[in-house]
Amino acid sequence: MTFANVGTLGTVPGKRDELVRYLTRRSETLRQIGCLAYEVGVNDNDPDTVFVVELWESEEAHKSSLALPEVQASITGARPLLSGTFGGFRFEVAGSPLRD
Amino acid sequence: MTFANVGTLGTVPGKRDELVRYLTRRSETLRQIGCLAYEVGVNDNDPDTVFVVELWESEEAHKSSLALPEVQASITGARPLLSGTFGGFRFEVAGSPLRD
Repeated sequence: MTFANVGTLGTVPGKRDELVRYLTRRSETLRQIGCLAYEVGVNDNDPDTVFVVELWESEEAHKSSLALPEVQASITGARPLLSGTFGGFRFEVAGSPLRD
Repeated sequence: MTFANVGTLGTVPGKRDELVRYLTRRSETLRQIGCLAYEVGVNDNDPDTVFVVELWESEEAHKSSLALPEVQASITGARPLLSGTFGGFRFEVAGSPLRD
């Protein structure tokens, strides 16, 4: 069942766009391990926050991804840009009006 | 620029699954007016909440959708199922590691 992970990442002041560039570096691995969508964005009303919507083939695929060396390295690399404030939620996709 | 609208809808106790069925009724209109994705889901840790991730061709497409009679009727129809508690955030998509 498709799994959604939606989050806000607080950044060190002024580091938002650097974190966006970091998180949007092209990755072939992500798709191979079951990531269906990974949208990274911003909202100028909240200038030190990066927003992420992730869709995964399953909750298990998402969980497994966190153990991969590439993903671990990415998390470590992002740390100096983060303020330590996080938000968001996770859910199991039940359906969509765009498909049967 | 792709626009994301991510939200939580609190429901009247026990009405979660009814709201999910309501929100996932097939709609050809949504895609025609610029809706790229509309994922509806649940999390059993939060039993009276429905989660929605929407992606739109633009913020303007999302805004215009709210004025359509079909969408207005849908909002009115959902009202008896809602507790009045809402959460979430909106952002402009800056990119994705899954595409260039």
